[in-house]
Amino acid sequence: MSNKKDNILIIGAGLCGSLLAVRLAQRGYTVNVYESRPDLRTTDISAGRSINLALSDRGLKAMRLAGVEDKVKPLCIPMYGRLVHDIEGNTFPSNYSGRDNEYINSISRGELNGLLLTEADLYDNLTIHFNKKCNGIDIENNTASLYDYETKTELEVTGDVIFGTDGAGSSLRKSYYLERKFLFSYAQNYLTHGYKELEIPASAEGKHLISKDYLHIWPRGDYMLIALPNLDGSFTVTLFLSYEEGKYNFENLTTEESIKEFFATQFPDALALIPNIAEEFANNPTGALGTVKCSPWHYQNKNVLLGDAAHAIVPFYGQGMNASFEDVTVFDAILEQHEGNWETIFKVYEKTRKADTDAIADLAIDNYYEMRDHVANPIFKVKRAIEMALEKEFPNDYFSKYSMVTFKEDIPYHTAMTKGRAQDKAILNLIANKEIDTNEDLNTIFKKVQLETEAILQDDRIAGLK
Amino acid sequence: MSNKKDNILIIGAGLCGSLLAVRLAQRGYTVNVYESRPDLRTTDISAGRSINLALSDRGLKAMRLAGVEDKVKPLCIPMYGRLVHDIEGNTFPSNYSGRDNEYINSISRGELNGLLLTEADLYDNLTIHFNKKCNGIDIENNTASLYDYETKTELEVTGDVIFGTDGAGSSLRKSYYLERKFLFSYAQNYLTHGYKELEIPASAEGKHLISKDYLHIWPRGDYMLIALPNLDGSFTVTLFLSYEEGKYNFENLTTEESIKEFFATQFPDALALIPNIAEEFANNPTGALGTVKCSPWHYQNKNVLLGDAAHAIVPFYGQGMNASFEDVTVFDAILEQHEGNWETIFKVYEKTRKADTDAIADLAIDNYYEMRDHVANPIFKVKRAIEMALEKEFPNDYFSKYSMVTFKEDIPYHTAMTKGRAQDKAILNLIANKEIDTNEDLNTIFKKVQLETEAILQDDRIAGLK
Repeated sequence: MSNKKDNILIIGAGLCGSLLAVRLAQRGYTVNVYESRPDLRTTDISAGRSINLALSDRGLKAMRLAGVEDKVKPLCIPMYGRLVHDIEGNTFPSNYSGRDNEYINSISRGELNGLLLTEADLYDNLTIHFNKKCNGIDIENNTASLYDYETKTELEVTGDVIFGTDGAGSSLRKSYYLERKFLFSYAQNYLTHGYKELEIPASAEGKHLISKDYLHIWPRGDYMLIALPNLDGSFTVTLFLSYEEGKYNFENLTTEESIKEFFATQFPDALALIPNIAEEFANNPTGALGTVKCSPWHYQNKNVLLGDAAHAIVPFYGQGMNASFEDVTVFDAILEQHEGNWETIFKVYEKTRKADTDAIADLAIDNYYEMRDHVANPIFKVKRAIEMALEKEFPNDYFSKYSMVTFKEDIPYHTAMTKGRAQDKAILNLIANKEIDTNEDLNTIFKKVQLETEAILQDDRIAGLK
Repeated sequence: MSNKKDNILIIGAGLCGSLLAVRLAQRGYTVNVYESRPDLRTTDISAGRSINLALSDRGLKAMRLAGVEDKVKPLCIPMYGRLVHDIEGNTFPSNYSGRDNEYINSISRGELNGLLLTEADLYDNLTIHFNKKCNGIDIENNTASLYDYETKTELEVTGDVIFGTDGAGSSLRKSYYLERKFLFSYAQNYLTHGYKELEIPASAEGKHLISKDYLHIWPRGDYMLIALPNLDGSFTVTLFLSYEEGKYNFENLTTEESIKEFFATQFPDALALIPNIAEEFANNPTGALGTVKCSPWHYQNKNVLLGDAAHAIVPFYGQGMNASFEDVTVFDAILEQHEGNWETIFKVYEKTRKADTDAIADLAIDNYYEMRDHVANPIFKVKRAIEMALEKEFPNDYFSKYSMVTFKEDIPYHTAMTKGRAQDKAILNLIANKEIDTNEDLNTIFKKVQLETEAILQDDRIAGLK
């Protein structure tokens, strides 16, 4: 039993909230979205953090669902792999996939969010209210307390259903924690490292100064630099560095001299491309790298968390936005099945989705170590070479963990994690035990990897008494 | 450089706080302990929850350190294993160890806490203030805000160092969370099950009605009953049951009829021993089963969390109290090395200890599934039989995971977890693959288990690129 008269409130018009709003409007609901920031199409609010993101297949599937894929594509810059920069300035490529049609897309968060807001404007039954900050939600009465930055007044709005898509610092999640109406499992975990965004500007002709076809990485074990291309020829560079440990850290890099010395010794080729390094380092904020998990995601039939509000993750798998967009795809399918019964929808949604968002959170942390450290490890390099060859030779049958997570939107994250970790373990052990090498026949390698992967999964099943 | 003039505040005079207070007093510090409850030696505050606990070797080591082991021993009832009760009322024993001298001890929380408080009274430089509830701590100025239940007034006390040993609901930890002076990683995770305490009274002659030499378990997959003996001939019974899922749960067991039907069909032999079942079920509180992890445990050189305040765990390994007591042992050794430099002490303490308390938290959750489910699994029973035989035959060389955790206080929890999980996996797979069985020569079994365990650990090291 659908009741399209339901008045839906969405808190947060970021990537997830604006997509969800569009989709619910397409389904005929009356939707009001409250967003704390001004309209980013008319105001620059980037402020040196999370400027660009990697859009991949799970995200694109959600764009298709909302009918906006064709509008999104022109904003994308394909990145076919990592280009690893060593300390001498040598580079070596490591493709994401052995299949030519698989790549991830560098995209501007602001441009994409703006596109979704513009799409939202097409629906008469959907209204976005900017500059309205949510300070908390009475989860029993489904009333949001808002502060209007323009009129400097407070207001309360009540909805039949409230969606919290207000990101890692979600006010709805905070209300779940503070109201203590139920046992709320909640975890916020920070890495010991923070991040800072810098910029490689475009050439005088507006061209990219290094290849725009790759995600650039300067892995150095304890810290790492990455760079993603922008449409205007610039690159957004992100430094990941410890707050207070090691020789170089955010606490002790406080002078222009020390910052330049750090880059000159550790990232000499990058330093040459970042003219305003000291100024940007000093002025851009240092961001924290946190993972948020919680449960339950909803309260009765009244309100529910989606996107980063339910499961913020670290950026190292390039899946934060994709996971939030996929939330909308998964939610939409369950809504289709149970329309009219919000409590069932919310329960089935969490039951269906939670293991997958937990998995991508853990995979993202794994990738933090992989990117800053393992990509320079010899045995890891052999593994990637073998996987590229397998994907090229068996494009329909072999998928690396990275490919399953990134390009196979029909494989849930949790399955990709379980299968992918077993496969990684199989290949690394086969290499270490000299049972396979890069010169061997690919058919033989493929069979050995399959057998060993299945044996690992079977051993784990037995150990779990399943 | 030691400064014994340091004025130490301890928040909470529970098991961990009172032991810590004694140990710091023994070292010559001036110690003031603030406890929200009245003195449990003169007031009954048990209120139907967590009446008895299992004291094992890690806890006893801490008792030795404080010189009270001889006083504690008379409070202990040795339990040599689990006695599993099936649904027909048949019982079968499963010993904790193949070594005769290894057992755990059922002990009354109140008696043990009282003993430590009485010990604390021996020191002139140690004062315990009861009925003083801590409402929060100014972590920068090291000031605790207290409410005095007797005088109904508020007071503030300042210390050179503050220890938060105020348990799972710690006010110091809450201040770390709320003050946001640093990135505080924090997780509270609840199981879907809660618990309720019941009682098997003593016989008219004051004797135990079932064997007092075992921890009794009634494993039923979705729920479980356990019973631990008390010195007065009674048993404390605990029911672990889902809040809202399954046929039977805390939400739907609301009538005397439904409670009795539940016990009559699921735990018939236990029902016969619990005369006041319906009354106790209705009146005793339903407790939550939560795990708390956090980091950092300290703020600068000022204050630090110990015991459940830093790492509350579920009760299924019988290690909550033992882990908290071991905190004091570990802290004391580090204090000995770095006395005078609190910040170093706190840092080294967390660095030394955190992986171990994380490990016991995870192991305790594993054991929840083992106790309610796996103990009735045929392959699991074969494994336990083989391990008992190995421990009997090779008492100095073979240690099961349970034995390492429970009886080998010199093996850190994290090592016990890593080695023990690999060993469990090895044995279960060897049994499942029919490579070992109970009729085989124990020397051969031992060698196969050793080899397979080492192979598993090696495969994991390679998979982790370590």
